Amino acid sequence: MSMNITNAHASVPLKILGMGKYLPPRTVPSSILEAQMGLKPGWILQKSGVEVRHWAAHESNAELGAQALTEALHNAGLAYEELDLILNASGSYDYPIPDTSCLIQRAMGKGRSGIPSFTIDATCLSFIAALDVAASFLASGRYQRIAIVSAEISSRSLNLDEKESATLLGDGAAAAIVGLAPEGEPSALLQSRLETYGDGAMYTYVKGGGNVLHPNARAHTESHPSDFTFHMDGPKVLGMAFKQLRPFLKALFKPLGFGLRDCEFIVPHQASKGALDTARRLFRWREDQYIDHLATHGNCIAASIPMALYDAIDQNRISRGDRVCLLGTGAGLSVGGLVLVY
Amino acid sequence: MSMNITNAHASVPLKILGMGKYLPPRTVPSSILEAQMGLKPGWILQKSGVEVRHWAAHESNAELGAQALTEALHNAGLAYEELDLILNASGSYDYPIPDTSCLIQRAMGKGRSGIPSFTIDATCLSFIAALDVAASFLASGRYQRIAIVSAEISSRSLNLDEKESATLLGDGAAAAIVGLAPEGEPSALLQSRLETYGDGAMYTYVKGGGNVLHPNARAHTESHPSDFTFHMDGPKVLGMAFKQLRPFLKALFKPLGFGLRDCEFIVPHQASKGALDTARRLFRWREDQYIDHLATHGNCIAASIPMALYDAIDQNRISRGDRVCLLGTGAGLSVGGLVLVY
Repeated sequence: MSMNITNAHASVPLKILGMGKYLPPRTVPSSILEAQMGLKPGWILQKSGVEVRHWAAHESNAELGAQALTEALHNAGLAYEELDLILNASGSYDYPIPDTSCLIQRAMGKGRSGIPSFTIDATCLSFIAALDVAASFLASGRYQRIAIVSAEISSRSLNLDEKESATLLGDGAAAAIVGLAPEGEPSALLQSRLETYGDGAMYTYVKGGGNVLHPNARAHTESHPSDFTFHMDGPKVLGMAFKQLRPFLKALFKPLGFGLRDCEFIVPHQASKGALDTARRLFRWREDQYIDHLATHGNCIAASIPMALYDAIDQNRISRGDRVCLLGTGAGLSVGGLVLVY
Repeated sequence: MSMNITNAHASVPLKILGMGKYLPPRTVPSSILEAQMGLKPGWILQKSGVEVRHWAAHESNAELGAQALTEALHNAGLAYEELDLILNASGSYDYPIPDTSCLIQRAMGKGRSGIPSFTIDATCLSFIAALDVAASFLASGRYQRIAIVSAEISSRSLNLDEKESATLLGDGAAAAIVGLAPEGEPSALLQSRLETYGDGAMYTYVKGGGNVLHPNARAHTESHPSDFTFHMDGPKVLGMAFKQLRPFLKALFKPLGFGLRDCEFIVPHQASKGALDTARRLFRWREDQYIDHLATHGNCIAASIPMALYDAIDQNRISRGDRVCLLGTGAGLSVGGLVLVY
């Protein structure tokens, strides 16, 4: 019955054992959207920073997630049955009920496995929140091998009249399997931090689809298709986020004795061109120190951070032993970050 | 950088510091529903076991949750600012984006507080999943005082043509504040277990509202209001749940050296009259050993377990030091349970 309580900033020897990524095959170049939306050629790349994004044709969130998880298991050299938890970490979903985690399990053909599954939703920061939960599960011994799957489809909830967001968002999925690092290996989650400011809750939202505006109200004359689509007030998000980011980073790194710029690599949420450009300038990131794949992916909600991490690892920009910072902001409004040794 | 890794079944000295409960004031007696739905007087009580349920009038999930959290803080003798995490643990929600946790924070008037907030969704088992997460957060030292809020509104998603579910579901909210037990106190989370069987994912669902059937499809002739309402195949849920429950309970209690019937108190999910009656009979619960408040609340999704726990504590049916089992099944299909010393 006894246990050792660690302090609030204890490191957890968490190791990313393998990752997977899956993009739906259908690509939508910005030129097509510009023609559809009556925008000048080049407007989208200049404003949103996106040249091409993937939009799911008929796939579900669960199907995208299962593809990413299958690759992650392969890369970790593990069988599905060796998992003891599946965390769906996504802001969009297939059904209001049930949560997507069990549908990912079913899409893997493992619907009889009994492997525990539930969802963590912190919108764009869901992967970061889930990795933080996973670290504590590993630390307490509750679970040993945890899959975190972020699978997002925003393309069905776009408002083509809101140019900035409609041209920014993409679909995609990524998965990570985590476990305890073997003795002697450096992999660890060093620090994590999340801050939520509900005053910014309505800067990024989908109004309709839940209890505030039920889908069946869609038949009423007073509700419009745009009520059920994504809305983002980019300038307000940027303003609130960057007001919080500097003190946030100070607090995140304070116990570590080094700073963000000392990290070998930074994986920012691919929030927007404005956000990435501002962060790079403000925090003086070196070009070789961070990943920006916005041009080829768009902002894929919670899947952006793990997909970008996957790409950085795949491109050998991150090596074992490197200090890596995952960092982002999300609807809520939340600011979240993790510092880990890959 | 070092820490002690506990084993998979280590106890965590988790203490429930205070709880709160809130029911929306509008009550709907079964007699009214029977008249509306053309049912014989007494049909609902006999079939669903519900005499009266609360249905939110204009309240949001966040508003119900904030009321419950306010009482929980009062009962714990804590100020909001002493929390370091808010977990929304609910299966229904106000908006598709953002998740409800930040809206609860905002509804408390604390939208500038920065206190981390995110959502855990395991449908009816969300409170159990969140308490399990909270225990590991406490064990690892990541957070010290955690609020778990389950706030549910299902009344806006009922299909009055599906008599069994439409007469069963209610709205309500409950909150618990948890922290580490002071040295020498017996409070602890002894064991927790979750099993998910995705093959049962479509036994309980709301089809429309997410990416599989977007709300904007509501305008199409081929989609119907009932596509956006709750559906439950009661017999299939009961069949699958009770097939799993016996081995589940054996595994849950195996490391503890005592069994479910040795627990001073059992708080089952208020799933349905059939589920509660079957469980009582099958596992031979004593009448004074468990709580059944279905008649006055209905099934309130994830809020049922913490509301029932609140009532049992409030009625002095649970005392400090008692071994309490929280137990339930949920959409997914999942089976979940926790054994704690209150």
